[in-house]
Amino acid sequence: MNAALKTASKGEETRAAILDEAVRIASRLGLEGLTIGTLADATDMSKSGLFAHFGSREGLQLAVLDHGARNFASHVVEPVISVERGVARLRAMFNRWVGWTIDSGLPGGCILISAAHEYDDRPGPIRDAVAGMQRRGISVIARAVTLAVGAGHLHRSTDPDQFAFEMMGIVLVAHHHGRLLGDMEAQNRAIAAFESLLSRYATPSAPKAASSPVALNRAR
Amino acid sequence: MNAALKTASKGEETRAAILDEAVRIASRLGLEGLTIGTLADATDMSKSGLFAHFGSREGLQLAVLDHGARNFASHVVEPVISVERGVARLRAMFNRWVGWTIDSGLPGGCILISAAHEYDDRPGPIRDAVAGMQRRGISVIARAVTLAVGAGHLHRSTDPDQFAFEMMGIVLVAHHHGRLLGDMEAQNRAIAAFESLLSRYATPSAPKAASSPVALNRAR
Repeated sequence: MNAALKTASKGEETRAAILDEAVRIASRLGLEGLTIGTLADATDMSKSGLFAHFGSREGLQLAVLDHGARNFASHVVEPVISVERGVARLRAMFNRWVGWTIDSGLPGGCILISAAHEYDDRPGPIRDAVAGMQRRGISVIARAVTLAVGAGHLHRSTDPDQFAFEMMGIVLVAHHHGRLLGDMEAQNRAIAAFESLLSRYATPSAPKAASSPVALNRAR
Repeated sequence: MNAALKTASKGEETRAAILDEAVRIASRLGLEGLTIGTLADATDMSKSGLFAHFGSREGLQLAVLDHGARNFASHVVEPVISVERGVARLRAMFNRWVGWTIDSGLPGGCILISAAHEYDDRPGPIRDAVAGMQRRGISVIARAVTLAVGAGHLHRSTDPDQFAFEMMGIVLVAHHHGRLLGDMEAQNRAIAAFESLLSRYATPSAPKAASSPVALNRAR
């Protein structure tokens, strides 16, 4: 590796470490609670160094959202690309999503869900970024549903957007119950709900569920 | 009406008007954004007068939550008591809930859902109050489901808590889509999802849906 690449990679590592810390702060206090000052305290970096990295507080907030979306992609979306197209991939995606949402290791849970609530009524670049991420997430699900229809696992009449809407509802209520009510059964209830959703659209050739929560635990 | 009662009622009206304003502020800024100072500015009352009403900022926040829960009860729960027990009452409750959640007339949407996200990781009296309200809400749904089983409209094998969990998921995603993504179809998708949920558990004697979104609009 030449020196320039090494420096770039070192810089990226530093940036990623700073953003990991920023995601933890945003998870606890909301994106509105994240400032260059609180991040400087948490990372032992100078405020001027952080300004150099992110340009402004809004730049930092947008970078944090982007980092959260990348975490989501690497924990939930990318690992299932190797799973067979169709119901198996949808199931793997759902299990990873619920597991990641409830148990992301973040003090305040998923920052994308929190940000959606924080910014749904505050027009501006952050709200646009959050809405764009949600739209991309939905289109990723809808695409997986379309592939499952193509694989002959789901009926041709399946509406991918309706499926994605209902799948997201199950994730949201699992997040809600699991975090606020400490409902240990939230994951099991979520899996039962998702299997009902699948079975509504499944053709006889759809693969059956593994039937135990082991798959979910493994997915985390 | 004697003078004492009249005074009590006048005091209650004032309190309700103050709390309506406080709910609007909390809807926009979150409960954490609600202070005695911001409320004093918005209501043209003195800070000392508001302290006399609520005792402390936390007292104000708890009163606002309680006021939000009463609004929910009077818009969603109480009106459906007159609807026939069973699937008709469940449907009416769902339609009112989704309509109220998306279109409560509050700038930032339902304060109970926002507060659940704001406080799920902040132990203390407010989190306890939010969790208690959510538990009561769930038990109200579960009770309506049990009555629908008793009426012979839903199968005896129906798990009221699982039903309530899934019903809440549909409300949460409708709130999410309707507010963040401006998805005009969110209400129609929510109704379709709820009808699927019902049909999964329905017996042949369950009343059918009115089949148009008119019922929902009327419910607002």
